[in-house]
Amino acid sequence: MKTKIGILGYGNLARGVEAAVGRSGDMELRAVFTRRDPAAVKIASEGVPVLPVSAAEEMTGDIDVLILCGGSATDLPVQTKKYAALYNVVDSFDTHRDIPVHFAEADEASRAAGKISVISCGWDPGLFSLARTYGDAVLPDGTDYTFWGRGVSQGHSDAIRRIRGVVDARQYTVPVPEALEAVRAGKCPELTVRQKHTRECYVVAEEGADLARIEREIKTMPKYFDEYDTTVTFVSLDELRKDHAGIPHGGFVIRNGETGSGNRHTVEFRLQLDSNPEFTGSVLLACARAAFRLNREGQTGCRTMLDIPPAYLSEKTREELLAHLV
Amino acid sequence: MKTKIGILGYGNLARGVEAAVGRSGDMELRAVFTRRDPAAVKIASEGVPVLPVSAAEEMTGDIDVLILCGGSATDLPVQTKKYAALYNVVDSFDTHRDIPVHFAEADEASRAAGKISVISCGWDPGLFSLARTYGDAVLPDGTDYTFWGRGVSQGHSDAIRRIRGVVDARQYTVPVPEALEAVRAGKCPELTVRQKHTRECYVVAEEGADLARIEREIKTMPKYFDEYDTTVTFVSLDELRKDHAGIPHGGFVIRNGETGSGNRHTVEFRLQLDSNPEFTGSVLLACARAAFRLNREGQTGCRTMLDIPPAYLSEKTREELLAHLV
Repeated sequence: MKTKIGILGYGNLARGVEAAVGRSGDMELRAVFTRRDPAAVKIASEGVPVLPVSAAEEMTGDIDVLILCGGSATDLPVQTKKYAALYNVVDSFDTHRDIPVHFAEADEASRAAGKISVISCGWDPGLFSLARTYGDAVLPDGTDYTFWGRGVSQGHSDAIRRIRGVVDARQYTVPVPEALEAVRAGKCPELTVRQKHTRECYVVAEEGADLARIEREIKTMPKYFDEYDTTVTFVSLDELRKDHAGIPHGGFVIRNGETGSGNRHTVEFRLQLDSNPEFTGSVLLACARAAFRLNREGQTGCRTMLDIPPAYLSEKTREELLAHLV
Repeated sequence: MKTKIGILGYGNLARGVEAAVGRSGDMELRAVFTRRDPAAVKIASEGVPVLPVSAAEEMTGDIDVLILCGGSATDLPVQTKKYAALYNVVDSFDTHRDIPVHFAEADEASRAAGKISVISCGWDPGLFSLARTYGDAVLPDGTDYTFWGRGVSQGHSDAIRRIRGVVDARQYTVPVPEALEAVRAGKCPELTVRQKHTRECYVVAEEGADLARIEREIKTMPKYFDEYDTTVTFVSLDELRKDHAGIPHGGFVIRNGETGSGNRHTVEFRLQLDSNPEFTGSVLLACARAAFRLNREGQTGCRTMLDIPPAYLSEKTREELLAHLV
């Protein structure tokens, strides 16, 4: 019998989860819940109902795991604890400093409901958290580095769009090659924010807008850009749509460490993703598989990917894993 | 209170485990067991007894986890099930095709004893098994590739040493750069054994030996060398000792996969190790930490690294992991 998945929210990430369900052999999509008018939301899956978000409170018998596809800023701090009281839930909460609080709230709700929640799934947090943890466990005397990119940062793109005179924008975060090479070579450099990443901005301006002012406002924007070497390239709307339509991303977690009387080791985990939301959605679905299995065993409470035996994420049986992947 | 570790066997891997204990904050070494004359075995740790292997049967009250440092060919098939009946045990069993049988035997012994065994720890199997499993779970429509090296293969070095007229030898396994690049670029090539790796041999021959015959015997050796492009370089014993004293290794697990309507993704895990036995020993010690924690919770039976929540390997607390590594 397939695991019955519900999706709450229907943006890019939700479409990524939906696509992953379509490629899995053991999952089926039972409903999409939206805050918009359901009649106005056209989903990719045939025969799956699109329901108002209020209906999510009444389908606990029909859905094994509800995947929460809202944003970390305002949606998930409310939604995760709310729906963890009803369902096994999975989210991609990625505000790193607030993870302990988010974990505690989800844990309380899930325990009370006798369910499992898995928070902060995806690649960072998620697979990168795993890479940092395995690296730290096997090389306790060491240093780890996380680089992001080359990829589109939605937050930074949105920040540019809020500047007066900007029609649209796309911001790429790019690791500095020299920094990456120094880390990979095991040199354990101390790196400033500026030395690790550069920011490339492709901006469509309104006709007649003051381009020099826009460029200056971008480059001096506190936190988002002022600590980085930033380049701004003005393009037409057609160029933006043609050359910057994708949502690629990726990055590196590299740990350098020492054993014995000074032998050096480097552990590197790297992602190159054509579509950030589709890959993230695929990770969320694997976590939904694990959530359901854990709960079926009688486990309850909140988990991160660090708490989940890797085999629980896989569609393969224990026998297949032992024979082919170990 | 520290976790009390015993080590059975005292070769390179055991010395790696011993060094890792010395760098950990939560482990202590209680005894080394050897089949040699204990008086003839000098270990690095001060104040730790070296005992005959027979004594290992009588120290169940003093040791929390026994780390088995024997070889996969003849030692571990006997030792793991024997000591799993007495202790929580960890081994590095790496004969991939025999892992299901080894698992079943260890599982039976550990369950009967109320203990945990963790088999096939290290990097391949071990961290590479994890990389293959995570890759498969998050990109089920994909292909994975494992490359080994550049590094010393003990098995291949030993095979050369058995040839008449050879004094000593060191064999390096080397990934073919073009194959690696094609895989990393997401091209999903079909690769033969020869296309993936080359073998470099550094050989010290007896004075007056027939070098052409030795080279021919190496290059045509079934399974070990005949399916590879192999180079043989004769060196002096001094050169071998000076230039090839280390035991470096490493490799790559790369998974290419597709999501949605054809977006491509590449997940890469890479190791560069100065000392294969020290790194492997460090992984075994992390697995010993997990074994003890699992058993303390009341769990019994056999596990691989695929069955262990990553957090259990780490010396860090849940709070530290949530705050800093997720």
